[in-house]
Parts: sequence; structure tokens; C-alpha cells
Amino acid sequence: MHVVAEPIQRLIDAFNRLPGIGPKSASRLAFYLLRAPAEQVQELAQAIAELQGAITYCSRCQNLTENDPCFICQDTQRDTSVVCVVEDALDVVAIERTGAYRGLYHVLHGAINPVAGIGPEDLRIDALVRRQSQEHFQEVLIATNPNMEGEATAMYIARLLRPLGVRVTRLARGLPMGGDVEYTDELTLSRALEGRREM
Amino acid sequence: MHVVAEPIQRLIDAFNRLPGIGPKSASRLAFYLLRAPAEQVQELAQAIAELQGAITYCSRCQNLTENDPCFICQDTQRDTSVVCVVEDALDVVAIERTGAYRGLYHVLHGAINPVAGIGPEDLRIDALVRRQSQEHFQEVLIATNPNMEGEATAMYIARLLRPLGVRVTRLARGLPMGGDVEYTDELTLSRALEGRREM
Repeated sequence: MHVVAEPIQRLIDAFNRLPGIGPKSASRLAFYLLRAPAEQVQELAQAIAELQGAITYCSRCQNLTENDPCFICQDTQRDTSVVCVVEDALDVVAIERTGAYRGLYHVLHGAINPVAGIGPEDLRIDALVRRQSQEHFQEVLIATNPNMEGEATAMYIARLLRPLGVRVTRLARGLPMGGDVEYTDELTLSRALEGRREM
Repeated sequence: MHVVAEPIQRLIDAFNRLPGIGPKSASRLAFYLLRAPAEQVQELAQAIAELQGAITYCSRCQNLTENDPCFICQDTQRDTSVVCVVEDALDVVAIERTGAYRGLYHVLHGAINPVAGIGPEDLRIDALVRRQSQEHFQEVLIATNPNMEGEATAMYIARLLRPLGVRVTRLARGLPMGGDVEYTDELTLSRALEGRREM
């Protein structure tokens, strides 16, 4: 038996298929949209409908972009001597938000994960090696995630690039700001000890 | 400075305006949809775009519906001697899910709330009184929320309907199932004591 009208149920089901949205949030969203200003609702529908068609990959850094090359690669103010290698477009967003990095990026679109059947050939690693020979970066800063897949990917890339005579660096690992030594897991704490610095 | 491509940012902003979706969830959803099957994405967009146009109010019970009268009012298996009065369409869903109620509904679309400027005339209370004189229910079960607005609304409706000779009842208040006497707030506990029953 259906409990809500079919067009509402259809939307609840569609929301429920999205990550992190359970049945309760899905129906809250659907009922909210029922009463929301028509303009806001149509804006959302249009933004979703047009999303995939409007987005492509930057042929240089492989980031998601509306225009190729992307706005970061086009920006003449960036430091072109360093490239930061990330797993995902969202990592670019996170690093840009810090304001602490002014170099270029290279987006791999994943990490090496033998269990999930993702090998180096499934990532944009070839394109990175090609860029190194063309753009002659002085530093390749690897910013993959601090987990098994990210570490494996970082090692693989470092091994490929070092023979090309470039300095390969990695984001520091250590205590997160606002964290607590007492509650820090052993692995993070050992990395923080290894990476200790003069002050 | 924009950090992500404009079509992605536009969708992130639109998601972020929905209740319960913060900036982080909004970008997670947008990036998920970027990679989701095109069919799923278009289904979601269409469900949102068509929602408001496809939904109207049931002229009998005031519930949201695709067809008027709604499927509950059309259902000849329902017990037409009792009507359950709820604040919202979502309350109908919740009560239907229990399977413990087979009567009709009446949706008020809100509760009396002087602070927010919502008076009885803003709710579908007139329509309920009209239904009582036409449909002659034997029982009106008031299922407004157990908070100040819901209580005020329940009292207002009871005062209007009692002179019409109908039995007016209210959902029981007491300990929630799975709850803990020790951690129950005083108000709920006093209602549970007042409402104690022979066993």
C-alpha cells in the first residue's frame, strides 16, 4: 500500500538513493520542497539536470571544470613550479580554502585499491608523468589521503617521479589541531613523534 | 574567489538552502551526482521539477494528494465513523505506518501559534467542523503534537466539536517505548502517571 501521493513518494525514493540521506531526511526534504517557493524548487531541479552536461575534465590538471583549461590552470598568479597531487576534486576545494597553497594541482580521481580492482592505470597518473616532462615542476607535493590506499598511491607516484629529478614531498602527518594527545590513535601519535620539529 | 566550477557551486548552494543540509553534505551530494548514472540524476531533477504541479489538497480531508479525493478518502475499506486530526501530511504517513488505525484523517496544515501569528483561521478547522456536520463521525481523535501549540490546537478543536455531540479523544501521552523511567522528563512522567491504566 502506498502511504503518500505517488509524486511525493517518487521524490522521497530519489532522495533516499543519495549518500547520507535516510528515509526520514528524504521525506523531510520532499515535504519541505512541496511548500518551498516554486522558484527555489525549479532552481534546484535545473542545477541537478544541467550538472553533468556542464562539467568536463581540465585537460591539464584533470580537475572537474566548466571551461577547459580550468580557472586554476588559467590563473597567471599561481606558482607553476609546484604541483599538488590529490585524489579528488573535493580535496582541491579543501586545500584552496586554507589559502596556504598557491601552486597548481593534479587530480588523480581515486587511489590505488587492489581490493576494489583500482590499479594505477585507472588513475590519471600517466597524465601527471607527462606533465612533469613538459612543465618541469621543481616540487611535486603528494596530498593523497593518510590511509592505506592513499599511502600506496603516494609511494607509487614517488617511485615514478624521483628518477625525473623532481623533489617529491608529502603532506605532514601528526596531531590534528584542536586534538588531544591522550585520545590520539597510536598510528597518528607515532607519525607525530617521527615528524617532530625544532621549535 | 570561486573554488569549484560554477555549475557545481550552484548546485551546492541550492542543496545548502534545504533544511538539515549543511555546506559539507551539500558538496558531498553535488560531487556524488556528478559521478552518478545520468538516468538517476535526471530522475531526481524531474521528480523535483514536477512535484509542486502534481500535488493538490484533498477537498475532503485536506491531505496532500495527486488525485482529489485522496486514496484514503476513496478507500471503501476505511472506518468512516472516526476521523484522526493531525497537523501535517507527514503525521498521516507516520500513523499509517503503524497499521493500528483504519479510520479517516483530517489535516490541519499547522497548529495554533500566536507567537508565529498562526490563528485558528489559518488552519483547516472550519473544514473539519463542516465535515462533522456532514459526515457525522462518532469519534474525533486529535493527534496534534504533544507540545504547547499542539495542545492549544487540540483544546480549541475539542471546544468547537463537543457541542456537536461527538466523542473527542486525544492520543495517549506517556513513556515512549524503549525509553527509560530514570531519564524521562518530568512532564512526560507526570502524564504517564496521570494516564496510568489497569493491567
